[in-house]
Amino acid sequence: MSEGVVSKGPTLFASTRLHHFVTDVFTRAGMTNQHAGYVADALVWANLRGMDSHGAMRIPRYIDLIDAGDINSRANIRVVTETPASIVLDCDRASGAVAMHEAVARSTALARQVGIGSVFVRKTTHTAAVGHFTQQVANQGMAAIAFGGSWPNMAYHGSRVAALSTSPFSIAVPGGSGGPIILDIATGAISVGKLRQAKRTGQAIPEGVALDKDGNPTTDPQTALIPLPLGGPKGSGLSLMIELIASVLVGNPILADALEGKPEGKRHRQNAFLLAIDVARYMDLDQFRAEVERLVRAIKALPKDAATAEILMPGERGARMLAKRTRDGVPIPPAVVKELSGVAGRFGIDPLVPL
Amino acid sequence: MSEGVVSKGPTLFASTRLHHFVTDVFTRAGMTNQHAGYVADALVWANLRGMDSHGAMRIPRYIDLIDAGDINSRANIRVVTETPASIVLDCDRASGAVAMHEAVARSTALARQVGIGSVFVRKTTHTAAVGHFTQQVANQGMAAIAFGGSWPNMAYHGSRVAALSTSPFSIAVPGGSGGPIILDIATGAISVGKLRQAKRTGQAIPEGVALDKDGNPTTDPQTALIPLPLGGPKGSGLSLMIELIASVLVGNPILADALEGKPEGKRHRQNAFLLAIDVARYMDLDQFRAEVERLVRAIKALPKDAATAEILMPGERGARMLAKRTRDGVPIPPAVVKELSGVAGRFGIDPLVPL
Repeated sequence: MSEGVVSKGPTLFASTRLHHFVTDVFTRAGMTNQHAGYVADALVWANLRGMDSHGAMRIPRYIDLIDAGDINSRANIRVVTETPASIVLDCDRASGAVAMHEAVARSTALARQVGIGSVFVRKTTHTAAVGHFTQQVANQGMAAIAFGGSWPNMAYHGSRVAALSTSPFSIAVPGGSGGPIILDIATGAISVGKLRQAKRTGQAIPEGVALDKDGNPTTDPQTALIPLPLGGPKGSGLSLMIELIASVLVGNPILADALEGKPEGKRHRQNAFLLAIDVARYMDLDQFRAEVERLVRAIKALPKDAATAEILMPGERGARMLAKRTRDGVPIPPAVVKELSGVAGRFGIDPLVPL
Repeated sequence: MSEGVVSKGPTLFASTRLHHFVTDVFTRAGMTNQHAGYVADALVWANLRGMDSHGAMRIPRYIDLIDAGDINSRANIRVVTETPASIVLDCDRASGAVAMHEAVARSTALARQVGIGSVFVRKTTHTAAVGHFTQQVANQGMAAIAFGGSWPNMAYHGSRVAALSTSPFSIAVPGGSGGPIILDIATGAISVGKLRQAKRTGQAIPEGVALDKDGNPTTDPQTALIPLPLGGPKGSGLSLMIELIASVLVGNPILADALEGKPEGKRHRQNAFLLAIDVARYMDLDQFRAEVERLVRAIKALPKDAATAEILMPGERGARMLAKRTRDGVPIPPAVVKELSGVAGRFGIDPLVPL
């Protein structure tokens, strides 16, 4: 890609081409074409929905992790524990998107058999946008609850250092005409991505959401580094419980290893939990969709506060962004375009062509 | 009870006597002695743990609900849907403590059979302190996730009116020497109980946590009425998803009926969901306990911020309060003592005798 493309503003790329490019990259990096496609699904989904921090900008970091042996591009995912209602998948350091794709298939198959199916996703790597996977469950007419355990990047309430993960937490249900309702949140008062963005733009960050490297509260975008937990002990407690269930319960503790300075604590790894509920086992699916739509309608008709033009459902902003970006293209900032160009060069594949 | 007891400060009562009193009240109100005992377990547990808003002060309101036919003291709880991994209990307007007691028994029995057991608690009434029930699961060596759907008392993000419940959400796991870890939170930025308390004490409430009756943001303890959701769209979204899974999915929608002004929407009712995970199916329970203790130790040793004397685990403050109040007695404020005295008089039972 010529230097000319690296201009000030972001460049627009067709999502189909971006998907093709990402699939090519991870195929060359050693994955099967199918697995590389799952990674592309997850990254492009995030870009389309406006969650750029979980989109194509992750590619260079994923490649680094493959180089370091932290992501295994030929992972052998296998069932290590099986009960009639649950499965523990040992993911052998698979890419998170590959591991979670398997978890979606397994949890929905289990839910079809026993009503509610649970999958523990052990020894995965960066889980990608977890809402992508709960949405896949919802697309099959099921409700989903998912959360992920990861390395320490957020303060424990009352502490001055990163000790917990801003653990992603997502719930999705099948919806009516507006599509599934997808809540996709984290346990921090602000995301690491937003702190990084503030550092670039210089915009001050709100009070009470971040600490600097020395553990002092700050609103300075240049020094803010560690997110505080959402609602103090609430976000902190939720993140701790996520680690205890997603990681400790399946014998792959992340936080304790990291906090104790164990060598394994320094390696990139994650765990996740995904639960699928087969709606049709509990009520008629069409009636459920109608009831969801009825509640959505009632909430959207509520009197609004002065700052609000429209009341939105969880995931609605993302769904609209997806429609827009599918039509108009995915914007990628110059620095990321340059990095992707480097990745293309390394693997000898055609660079991304802008719209 | 003589008027002399109604002094300015709270009166102390032995928790055992309080338990006996509550059991007597609900037995006279029509429950079996066993069911009345479950209500007493839940209310006294909340008082002992310092959650007085879910303790004995609820008794007069519960009696009103029994009088109105909204709590059924002779409820016939039955299984209306059963899959190999889940049960829907129709609770026939049972007292929440009775319904949740049944849910604990059913979910742990299911988890023993299939690894993870889920119970939908449909048509219950005030769920009481949900942490009481996740703790009961944890006491059996299992992890628990529970949440409850209820009537609108919290604003939806961007709206000016109460449209969602401050839905309780709890996760508990078996612990090491410190006992189970119990997260017991709500989805609001502040609880209704704290707003009521602020109104009594006159203490200003923080900015950004409440609206007045007209939907305007306020810090005035005399007018603050409607909690805002925790973290704006995060708490709001979580509460909405709880209603969709706990209520809508089992055909007992609460919010839509209330927001549409349906007669059924005005009646007190709740729903809940309880999931039990049998730790021993996934790893050795003693090893799990040791790993929990290891993580707790690492977190407690973290450098503290200036405002923090000690880093606490979820539920630790409550466990200490329980030890203290079991020893020193449960403080009950004069107004509540007077109400309880009235209840005792009505049912012809001995009034509570203070310590």
